Amino acid sequence: MEMGERLNFWILGGDPRQQALAEALAGDGHEVHTYALEETPGESLEGIWEAHCVVLPLPAAQGENLNAPLCAREVPLAEVLDPLLPGQLVCAGMVSPFLREQAESRGLHLEDYFAREELAVANAVPSSEGAIQIAMEELPITLHGARVLVIGAGRLGKVLCQQLMGLGAQVAVAARKYADLAWIQVRGGRAVRSDRLAGALEDYDLILNTVPAPLLDRAALETLRPGGLVIDLASKPGGVDFDAARELGVKVIWALSLPGKVAPVTAGRAIQTAIYNLLTELGV
Amino acid sequence: MEMGERLNFWILGGDPRQQALAEALAGDGHEVHTYALEETPGESLEGIWEAHCVVLPLPAAQGENLNAPLCAREVPLAEVLDPLLPGQLVCAGMVSPFLREQAESRGLHLEDYFAREELAVANAVPSSEGAIQIAMEELPITLHGARVLVIGAGRLGKVLCQQLMGLGAQVAVAARKYADLAWIQVRGGRAVRSDRLAGALEDYDLILNTVPAPLLDRAALETLRPGGLVIDLASKPGGVDFDAARELGVKVIWALSLPGKVAPVTAGRAIQTAIYNLLTELGV
Amino acid sequence: MEMGERLNFWILGGDPRQQALAEALAGDGHEVHTYALEETPGESLEGIWEAHCVVLPLPAAQGENLNAPLCAREVPLAEVLDPLLPGQLVCAGMVSPFLREQAESRGLHLEDYFAREELAVANAVPSSEGAIQIAMEELPITLHGARVLVIGAGRLGKVLCQQLMGLGAQVAVAARKYADLAWIQVRGGRAVRSDRLAGALEDYDLILNTVPAPLLDRAALETLRPGGLVIDLASKPGGVDFDAARELGVKVIWALSLPGKVAPVTAGRAIQTAIYNLLTELGV
Amino acid sequence: MEMGERLNFWILGGDPRQQALAEALAGDGHEVHTYALEETPGESLEGIWEAHCVVLPLPAAQGENLNAPLCAREVPLAEVLDPLLPGQLVCAGMVSPFLREQAESRGLHLEDYFAREELAVANAVPSSEGAIQIAMEELPITLHGARVLVIGAGRLGKVLCQQLMGLGAQVAVAARKYADLAWIQVRGGRAVRSDRLAGALEDYDLILNTVPAPLLDRAALETLRPGGLVIDLASKPGGVDFDAARELGVKVIWALSLPGKVAPVTAGRAIQTAIYNLLTELGV
Repeated sequence: MEMGERLNFWILGGDPRQQALAEALAGDGHEVHTYALEETPGESLEGIWEAHCVVLPLPAAQGENLNAPLCAREVPLAEVLDPLLPGQLVCAGMVSPFLREQAESRGLHLEDYFAREELAVANAVPSSEGAIQIAMEELPITLHGARVLVIGAGRLGKVLCQQLMGLGAQVAVAARKYADLAWIQVRGGRAVRSDRLAGALEDYDLILNTVPAPLLDRAALETLRPGGLVIDLASKPGGVDFDAARELGVKVIWALSLPGKVAPVTAGRAIQTAIYNLLTELGV
Repeated sequence: MEMGERLNFWILGGDPRQQALAEALAGDGHEVHTYALEETPGESLEGIWEAHCVVLPLPAAQGENLNAPLCAREVPLAEVLDPLLPGQLVCAGMVSPFLREQAESRGLHLEDYFAREELAVANAVPSSEGAIQIAMEELPITLHGARVLVIGAGRLGKVLCQQLMGLGAQVAVAARKYADLAWIQVRGGRAVRSDRLAGALEDYDLILNTVPAPLLDRAALETLRPGGLVIDLASKPGGVDFDAARELGVKVIWALSLPGKVAPVTAGRAIQTAIYNLLTELGV
Repeated sequence: MEMGERLNFWILGGDPRQQALAEALAGDGHEVHTYALEETPGESLEGIWEAHCVVLPLPAAQGENLNAPLCAREVPLAEVLDPLLPGQLVCAGMVSPFLREQAESRGLHLEDYFAREELAVANAVPSSEGAIQIAMEELPITLHGARVLVIGAGRLGKVLCQQLMGLGAQVAVAARKYADLAWIQVRGGRAVRSDRLAGALEDYDLILNTVPAPLLDRAALETLRPGGLVIDLASKPGGVDFDAARELGVKVIWALSLPGKVAPVTAGRAIQTAIYNLLTELGV
Repeated sequence: MEMGERLNFWILGGDPRQQALAEALAGDGHEVHTYALEETPGESLEGIWEAHCVVLPLPAAQGENLNAPLCAREVPLAEVLDPLLPGQLVCAGMVSPFLREQAESRGLHLEDYFAREELAVANAVPSSEGAIQIAMEELPITLHGARVLVIGAGRLGKVLCQQLMGLGAQVAVAARKYADLAWIQVRGGRAVRSDRLAGALEDYDLILNTVPAPLLDRAALETLRPGGLVIDLASKPGGVDFDAARELGVKVIWALSLPGKVAPVTAGRAIQTAIYNLLTELGV
């Protein structure tokens, strides 16, 4: 993709992130068509075979349908894939096995932009701000001066540490690897070994977990200070024993998929960047 | 006031800030009595004449009554001032002429902790975080990377600039004085002359006003970008022409008295510090 | 002074700051003449009566002469003031009584740009960086992680705190006023009361003094840790008992007039801004 | 290694980093012996076979000798290895093939602490500060407000970006990978694609190279602004065409091995941490 080149994009389905993506692409001078993104009577796929890039949302599919939450009716994936030509480029987020199979059987060139590292990095920012917003809403103290523990030094842990310190919080970060612990100190945080967390939790007003492993089990939760807040940002099983938390009266908020919820425009622009990079790599 | 000395405090009326203050004083080892702070059947003022310091809330009075929002019944100021001895120290916030008169007629030593500069500085932090929380809730973009204009380089303007930059926003600050403009640059912000604001507002995703002067008039509001958000933090008349904003479809949020709302515990601790400083100065 | 207007400047005498000033003014499109700034054979003051602004250096005079360190011969003030017309504007730095008298007797309009607050603010940055450079050269540890005490919360103390924290130092700031102590905490530093410094100095690897008062007396110096470094940035009497320091083997560096030494170009541009502001205020 | 356990260390050879290491180990309560570290008449290796950990310097060897710059005489490696018992632990930095062979032939347990990631991370801090010190010494402007380009987003590039931004510089970072470019933006820097550097260098007052690849060739150097400074921090071949720089009059400073030079005590403590981690992993 060359700077200034005008490409033809079709945005199929999606939520406000895809709306922001469509707007940002148009703002860059590209030709943009949408389908099943909003409730648009009489819209058609006429001409989609001329698209340089067909964009499916994040996630791309719900079962056998396109993920199209802003559109009243159900849109089968087949409906939008059938008009495409073999070899045509489809960029989709979180590609499911069913979608991959459907794309392959039609000879489409399918790429998963959600697998790109730079999108994961960019998404850590709205995730971090979403968590900070929740903490501000829930806590009776300011984050400035608050004692905060971030569990995990991955992408989200790093951005949380940066933004919380930027607000003036006293931030500790728990990690396993020695190199991560060294980085935490370089960044100005207090480095805590994950395997020494038990019994060290009473110092914190706020605990933000980013690790999908059962680190905050009953024994750990028992040591929390009264009024301490836990926000679990870890995917799938989460990192908190929610039953124990309920019994102990520990307030835990499980917050997932924050980028699309708290900052869809920023999240949409991050998808745009990932797609641009993909097109550049493919020589489109 | 010497470190480690145990004093006798009476906390009369108030909101969660005063609850936090009472807890913090007790946590420091002082003897703490409360009255009209919560719904406590059968409470009395017995012994209040032994208080080293009687604390009234912020603001201290509602007309002729004590400001006691957590207490169901109305409590006349006279009820709590009558038992005090001449010369006894009463620390109150935002002292009204009526309260001053009542205190003087009883020969009480009345001090207004809200007039202390260090409390105003400390309160700028919860005000700033309250504004940031609102911005996070309202905007579809992250503050990281957002173009933000802070109007005013006073205490609140300074803290907003610091915390917004800490989150990664691109911050400009509008001020009148050359020295303030120099400070803004030293702090890493973009300095904008207040008298050149007109026509320069379209660059910003978010405008935070801290100046109680009509800077954001119709002409200024007309130049805002679509989707731009204005949060007015200025007291009394505010700084925005709200009628014009409504007609132009500009979203304006007028946010006042944030410290007690968003971070009562932090705000209560700030009152504690101001009272400690006062007692030290008075040689109590 | 209007944006884009071309003015006529004469730069008389001075050091590399004045050279940078001349260059910056010319870079903005102004007509710039220099005299006694460099060793320029055959230079004359012909036409100086047409100058919108005659600029004398910082300090402007050495006794009865122009301060002209880059020029081999002595240049009496009278030599450069005589050709000026009554009412003509002369901007000078640190005006001495003799210079003021000479200007008044000729009916000149004399302004002292060094008295401007915004210049003092801007100069705090090169002073801070000069101090940081010295600390880096002298200490066998990094400033990142170093325990640093800044004495004084004025302009220089504020900028030192900001830049040292930016490098990752653990910064404490000593101040007298409660409001200053509150600001230090808002900025993320540790606030220390000046009157409790004695005996509290052993915690620091580096002490930067900005207060021209004898705070670092023998008793204080005796409590310094071995290898601890003191940099005294306070003008005139300084803040350190140098005799006691020598006897105790405490390393003290007295660093003055840093802006012109460590960053003459930045310092020259700061003078430019101050002069521009002055001209704007005067309606030139 | 358990907290509070007293171990027996022998520090052989080395520079001020090893002196700082010896001091720090003793400060933690360990038994510390040194040999060939300073000019100590009559010192012996008696008892070295009881050491829990024998520490060689960084680098460990100079040819067939121990690296012992503070010791007047040459000390063959054989002299210090011969008294050790088979299986005894030797921790060395930058192990040469000759040293490895010597250790293996004696059945010693040799570990290279310089290969540890956390030491490389920790060393990036003194390297960054050394580069900043050089820039402060050389430039006539402050780093605050300076336009700085950091080439490379590895460990050193990351720390340079953080510390320069902390001083108030306007920092751009050049990187190749999209994920690195995303991180640079998250950290608040301007992201520049390495393959678009040519012709984009005139914007910078200071260029810090961390990449050992010929990015700053003649064509690139020709586009530098007059007075622009280049500091090359890349190892081995460096990243600058030094001949072209000389001919073009571009000032280039090649700065290597900064940690031991500018902050030996910090660098020694980083070695201490790496050795502690190693001992913990080995179960010593």
